[in-house]
Amino acid sequence: MSFNTFGRVFRFSTWGESHGPAIGAMVDGCPPGLPLSEADIQPFLDKRKPGTSKFTTQRREPDEVRILSGVFEGRTTGTPISLMIENKDQRSKDYSEVAKAYRPGHADYAYDAKYGFRDYRGGGRSSARETASRVAAGAVARLVIPDVDIFAYVSEIGGDAIDHARFDASEIDNNPFFCPDPEAAKRWEKLVDDARKDGSSLGAVVECIASGVPAGWGAPLYAKLDSELAAAMMSINAVKGVEIGDGFAAARLRGEENADPMRPNAEGGKDGNPVFLANHAGGIAGGISTGQPVKVRIAFKPTSSILIPVETVTREGAASEIITKGRHDPCVGIRGVPVVEAMMALVLADQKLLHRAQCGAD
Amino acid sequence: MSFNTFGRVFRFSTWGESHGPAIGAMVDGCPPGLPLSEADIQPFLDKRKPGTSKFTTQRREPDEVRILSGVFEGRTTGTPISLMIENKDQRSKDYSEVAKAYRPGHADYAYDAKYGFRDYRGGGRSSARETASRVAAGAVARLVIPDVDIFAYVSEIGGDAIDHARFDASEIDNNPFFCPDPEAAKRWEKLVDDARKDGSSLGAVVECIASGVPAGWGAPLYAKLDSELAAAMMSINAVKGVEIGDGFAAARLRGEENADPMRPNAEGGKDGNPVFLANHAGGIAGGISTGQPVKVRIAFKPTSSILIPVETVTREGAASEIITKGRHDPCVGIRGVPVVEAMMALVLADQKLLHRAQCGAD
Amino acid sequence: MSFNTFGRVFRFSTWGESHGPAIGAMVDGCPPGLPLSEADIQPFLDKRKPGTSKFTTQRREPDEVRILSGVFEGRTTGTPISLMIENKDQRSKDYSEVAKAYRPGHADYAYDAKYGFRDYRGGGRSSARETASRVAAGAVARLVIPDVDIFAYVSEIGGDAIDHARFDASEIDNNPFFCPDPEAAKRWEKLVDDARKDGSSLGAVVECIASGVPAGWGAPLYAKLDSELAAAMMSINAVKGVEIGDGFAAARLRGEENADPMRPNAEGGKDGNPVFLANHAGGIAGGISTGQPVKVRIAFKPTSSILIPVETVTREGAASEIITKGRHDPCVGIRGVPVVEAMMALVLADQKLLHRAQCGAD
Amino acid sequence: MSFNTFGRVFRFSTWGESHGPAIGAMVDGCPPGLPLSEADIQPFLDKRKPGTSKFTTQRREPDEVRILSGVFEGRTTGTPISLMIENKDQRSKDYSEVAKAYRPGHADYAYDAKYGFRDYRGGGRSSARETASRVAAGAVARLVIPDVDIFAYVSEIGGDAIDHARFDASEIDNNPFFCPDPEAAKRWEKLVDDARKDGSSLGAVVECIASGVPAGWGAPLYAKLDSELAAAMMSINAVKGVEIGDGFAAARLRGEENADPMRPNAEGGKDGNPVFLANHAGGIAGGISTGQPVKVRIAFKPTSSILIPVETVTREGAASEIITKGRHDPCVGIRGVPVVEAMMALVLADQKLLHRAQCGAD
Repeated sequence: MSFNTFGRVFRFSTWGESHGPAIGAMVDGCPPGLPLSEADIQPFLDKRKPGTSKFTTQRREPDEVRILSGVFEGRTTGTPISLMIENKDQRSKDYSEVAKAYRPGHADYAYDAKYGFRDYRGGGRSSARETASRVAAGAVARLVIPDVDIFAYVSEIGGDAIDHARFDASEIDNNPFFCPDPEAAKRWEKLVDDARKDGSSLGAVVECIASGVPAGWGAPLYAKLDSELAAAMMSINAVKGVEIGDGFAAARLRGEENADPMRPNAEGGKDGNPVFLANHAGGIAGGISTGQPVKVRIAFKPTSSILIPVETVTREGAASEIITKGRHDPCVGIRGVPVVEAMMALVLADQKLLHRAQCGAD
Repeated sequence: MSFNTFGRVFRFSTWGESHGPAIGAMVDGCPPGLPLSEADIQPFLDKRKPGTSKFTTQRREPDEVRILSGVFEGRTTGTPISLMIENKDQRSKDYSEVAKAYRPGHADYAYDAKYGFRDYRGGGRSSARETASRVAAGAVARLVIPDVDIFAYVSEIGGDAIDHARFDASEIDNNPFFCPDPEAAKRWEKLVDDARKDGSSLGAVVECIASGVPAGWGAPLYAKLDSELAAAMMSINAVKGVEIGDGFAAARLRGEENADPMRPNAEGGKDGNPVFLANHAGGIAGGISTGQPVKVRIAFKPTSSILIPVETVTREGAASEIITKGRHDPCVGIRGVPVVEAMMALVLADQKLLHRAQCGAD
Repeated sequence: MSFNTFGRVFRFSTWGESHGPAIGAMVDGCPPGLPLSEADIQPFLDKRKPGTSKFTTQRREPDEVRILSGVFEGRTTGTPISLMIENKDQRSKDYSEVAKAYRPGHADYAYDAKYGFRDYRGGGRSSARETASRVAAGAVARLVIPDVDIFAYVSEIGGDAIDHARFDASEIDNNPFFCPDPEAAKRWEKLVDDARKDGSSLGAVVECIASGVPAGWGAPLYAKLDSELAAAMMSINAVKGVEIGDGFAAARLRGEENADPMRPNAEGGKDGNPVFLANHAGGIAGGISTGQPVKVRIAFKPTSSILIPVETVTREGAASEIITKGRHDPCVGIRGVPVVEAMMALVLADQKLLHRAQCGAD
Repeated sequence: MSFNTFGRVFRFSTWGESHGPAIGAMVDGCPPGLPLSEADIQPFLDKRKPGTSKFTTQRREPDEVRILSGVFEGRTTGTPISLMIENKDQRSKDYSEVAKAYRPGHADYAYDAKYGFRDYRGGGRSSARETASRVAAGAVARLVIPDVDIFAYVSEIGGDAIDHARFDASEIDNNPFFCPDPEAAKRWEKLVDDARKDGSSLGAVVECIASGVPAGWGAPLYAKLDSELAAAMMSINAVKGVEIGDGFAAARLRGEENADPMRPNAEGGKDGNPVFLANHAGGIAGGISTGQPVKVRIAFKPTSSILIPVETVTREGAASEIITKGRHDPCVGIRGVPVVEAMMALVLADQKLLHRAQCGAD
């Protein structure tokens, strides 16, 4: 069922609201014996942390994680790993107006329609603050798949895309946008800052690549690797689209263009595996990994919290308009990068164990 | 866990291979007392049935469904509904070459890598024939959500898109492409036929709309309605991308453009609900339906079975090339339309019951 | 959720009613490459088959199983295994009276209360006929745990227990009661026959032992091996009690009596494991197998279908009395033996794969 | 999958070790709008709390619960409820010997066999301390089923049973044994105290009754109410047997004795339901509640932690013997009472929501 749980073998559940005392995650099904301490998790949280530049929300959260269970003498025990992050900088006064009227684009109206009432402080459970729990859980997941290398980056903001010819992975951490194209990063400074000053917001596209995934992960039919990735990414706040490999562009190719031809191992394959001459498929065929890099593209809508007034209704149904004061990300896709990476790690760790369960090997 | 099961409350499982004696689905968790007979299911199977035009595979399957359990005196009993469709026109001789070498773009290599061997006849379990089981299950799901109207159509083939200004829902069933734009349908005749004659194939984009979904369906956080739809659609053969509402286009909008403003019920709402002035969100906010139409866009890659030779390797790893003889769809996205509709129905039926479970109302 | 599915990795689902056209099971998550044909399943169904002696129901069912999917060239493919058994000897006329009034001890009233109506023919879904599907699935499960030896027997009928001092496993298949004590078997002939002639029925206790289970299977806390076994056994028709090891008798021991002392491997252990000097625990500690034989005891109530009139009410709520004509087992516990064995195999196969998933070894 | 999660719609997960910083539970799927504060949970924890008499462990734990999420303005929001209890009185020095050798009857050896190593401090995850998390979650479950009255009591200690003729529910809280028979309670004082002084321990039988459960809860076939209860109870530390209604005694009855005859509503039924003249079935038929009180009996083995030396082996496999110093319950079944009640509440809350999901009514 799992309202707030994701995964099949390596499972994680998250809890907590934006302005409650704490948020957290429980990781279950983690293999025993893996070295784990807070220091393995904190760097990923720091990468996602708010308040690090003017291009993200000014909420200041140290986001310090505590491991409350599941680790003994520095190693995982195979029992649930409880992770907790205290909320420190919640300022509920900022959200008084939100209690009365619905913010278009936000979950406000939908939560009210579903549950009859809602924790309106900072979006409550629907706040992107929840993604810190995912990032913490994702750091544990990475330990399960040490041979897999995962990285994500922003490839487009507000319709302004990077030039893949200038792609340089080493640039990703050199700018506040996780941008692999230094020229695009420069352009985005003004673009995002202008939007911020306008009280507006911008959408973004994030791309994520996992290399080192062996052929054979993914469980047909309804636990396909691409299906799981789509669910994982679409569950992130503000995500409206997911592509595997060429995605929608594949719909414009002919069969012979879209096929990823194979060549014998002797022509440069690793570990006895054949070589692929292209990767339109994004490393997945029939829902199972092929040994090529797994590639996912994710669309983030512009942040719905803006300072420009939008027409809305009050809880009582009266006409109104609303601006969302408070501290917000002008482009929520930027801080989506570590979240996307975490979800990739969580899906792959789970699929590795699921494959092992049925097929007896990693 | 559910390797071959989908859903949380209203669940379905499918079984069967392209060239085995039969395929089928088991629907579990269906509410009791719903009128159901084979006649409620058959029309949907007929819509998906192969061999109805030169634009689909020439395999001839009557696809007659039998209900083996779960119905008594014409009504569902609340116990599992077993649905079976016999395979009639399997011709295994067509696939002898596939046993030896991998078809690029197909699941052949991935299945071998995962399981050590595979049923190579017609793609075995990875064949799109499995989707007939989904369509049968989907017909049952529709009974659970009688107030929801679901329809899908092809909006683009081989990069040639419909003109939404000419959109006419009544045209969808008037052409072999499920195309709502009669002019596009005319162009596609030649387009698809040319690809077929070339031994090539084309990709397609399918759009699906569900209206009549009340606000409140969808269970945050990891059973969000959009997350479930993404998983459902991405599990369909050949699908490489999923968008909710504006999808990737939303990433190019500013916050104030993307917000769907709300107006009081007095201005034209139904059932006391507010009016939305736009639907960029595709009817879902925070993972929960808003009462607007739910909109999904799905990218189908071109069929991987083509008559144009592609470089590949044999099971023994030797260089080879392969053409896929047999009977194939030149554009698998066309027959994806009833499958997409079925998955939409299956997700919505499930979410309706899930919502009822927690919140006590439909 | 799984209304009609059991298991976590190795999962099976059953469908079908007593008087429908067929019953069946779908096994999902089975490892690939295991040799499997109908001949591997049929002997277990034959053991459970009705009509083999005057001590079981006279319904005549060949119970021939057909494998509809998941097997290719004689081996499991890793995809769902669909098993079907046609119903041949349903005689619905026997059950006309049951449509009108509730049989005490049966599920009739409860099903009506839950679902609003029910398939009353032979108990519909609540019939013990469903257990044939379990037995078929259990035969597949045995292939997953080839080193585990499972056997069950009846240890008590109508309060008349075997003498464990006379226990002889080779006797179990020499009498129609699966009784390991030939003297008890002799007594039971008259006991059961008398009950049958009286139109009454008797309860029974079944014991099941699985040897060869390695230490380490069972997943704390809520997938404990003993918890899974309890759920599995209690789900069988007519079962009202389950004990692991000494069960209720353990509640009468002191701590030092109940402890199973351990001795070094040198004193007779296998595979480097320590020796246990007793097995009060039934081979399970903390929900995990210890390497000792796993022992379960199961109480079956007397068959509720009897020819002695019992007070009841009609569907309309009027006072009535009812006798259950038709063909019934005078002691349903007897045919419970192969069902108990099947459930043991199903739980152990599942736990083996679950252990492998998390801990990476069998 | 759910290693550490229980339930289908109303689900709870627990985490934490005996000597870690804290333990906790996450409740998911709880309906929104229920009034909830720590004060609703604390009394149940106090009932289970150690150190309240000389008949329980002398570990002193305030067991104060904190609600970290899922409640806003005093009501549940429908999002996960995170409950945390800090460990205050862990004294790890007591357990040094346990690190080296296995305590027979404990999970020590099994955990090592499964995971390769273990948190030996106070039993780590296998400690009965985990049951405090269940009790906290159970208090929330009770809010979901306000019309159901649940109580449990000890009916037998060390083989000395209560006299049901003297049963007086109002006595249960008047003695440290949760004993409804004041004379038995008197006898048990000496019995348990003697065992304690001997450094030994005693087993116990607990009975639990839930009245007010309507007919129709329980989901056949593999989510049957009795099957769920068996799994729930057997998952509690030290439990070795579970009976529904007459349990094993039913195996000694004849069919006509075991039937629970029904009479028309006019003869004293409630809410239009028929009257049952007996309750051998324990309120469950075909896995579904009948409207009668649900009755479960549970066998607790004697505490395995005793001061009497038992033969064992060290982690290195050498012969040894062990006594378990530290603070232990001489009869762990006593404190099992609130745990059994909690598990009953958790199963019933879940089944209520599951029934509502499928059948649309409570």
